[in-house]
Amino acid sequence: MPFTMSKVSLPAFEIGLNALTAVLDKAAAYSAAKKIDPSVLLGWRLAPDMFSLGRQVQVACDQAKNGSARLAGIEPPKFDDTEVTLDQFKERIAKTVAFLKTLDVKAIDASSDREITFPLGQNRGQMKGCDYLNHFMLPNFYFHLTAAYAVVRNFGVDVGKRDFLGAIPLKRI
Amino acid sequence: MPFTMSKVSLPAFEIGLNALTAVLDKAAAYSAAKKIDPSVLLGWRLAPDMFSLGRQVQVACDQAKNGSARLAGIEPPKFDDTEVTLDQFKERIAKTVAFLKTLDVKAIDASSDREITFPLGQNRGQMKGCDYLNHFMLPNFYFHLTAAYAVVRNFGVDVGKRDFLGAIPLKRI
Repeated sequence: MPFTMSKVSLPAFEIGLNALTAVLDKAAAYSAAKKIDPSVLLGWRLAPDMFSLGRQVQVACDQAKNGSARLAGIEPPKFDDTEVTLDQFKERIAKTVAFLKTLDVKAIDASSDREITFPLGQNRGQMKGCDYLNHFMLPNFYFHLTAAYAVVRNFGVDVGKRDFLGAIPLKRI
Repeated sequence: MPFTMSKVSLPAFEIGLNALTAVLDKAAAYSAAKKIDPSVLLGWRLAPDMFSLGRQVQVACDQAKNGSARLAGIEPPKFDDTEVTLDQFKERIAKTVAFLKTLDVKAIDASSDREITFPLGQNRGQMKGCDYLNHFMLPNFYFHLTAAYAVVRNFGVDVGKRDFLGAIPLKRI
């Protein structure tokens, strides 16, 4: 089986995002049991100038959505950052996973040597497709996924590495 | 240029680990300026039952070292977890990067369909090489790299996403 750009991107994003939904569910159950308002959870952060949990979720979604769309050669759809409730954040994740399934796998596989241009702060960045995936999309995606997980752990929720990794194709022997 | 297992693993680990060294240097400078004992920094953690900064560094190194060695078909060397000082943790990172450079790139590239068996808690896990890289090595590596970064941020050090990403092949236009 060939080792391709689409295999390194799409399934990793889908598994990671679905794992994030399950982590949010555990965090919501914890908050409910402790009678903590969900907005306290969604606004929790690891440092005053780091993103809140809710913002980490939005950005993790956007890293997967925008990067994959650019590899596929299409303009990424814009998702407005209007989520307030936990269900809305979970819907954002579900919309992102659904969008990933619409992408042209062959176009992604053919993007390894193509120059990808993307917004970067006030300017733009440019990288070869394979470098953009390996050194920008994946580290940024896992950064925000881990940050969301770490906020939840710091909040007191009993989640572990298995929750973070999600439904990976692992055989225990 | 072909998209290969070695390209998705080795350069990402090397760039990420070198970025971690630079983050530790900034954290050490911050601690020194505030007259904080370095052991306080290295023992800092985001939750009582999460790993300390020092342990996050060790595990990030081991994810890169052990996974890459297994893809290359060799037994990973064991690094004893005896680091105490910041210089020793930086030496651990340098040793890991040096080890990655010794691996047989062609063996890694040929490992996509090979079944990889690895220790997993008290048991063992088994995954196809490509799945092991995409769904175990990369998420676990970035998990501990991000956790180390987040501990440093939570400690109060002024580091940003650029510090986390490190020397990626990015052109700003």
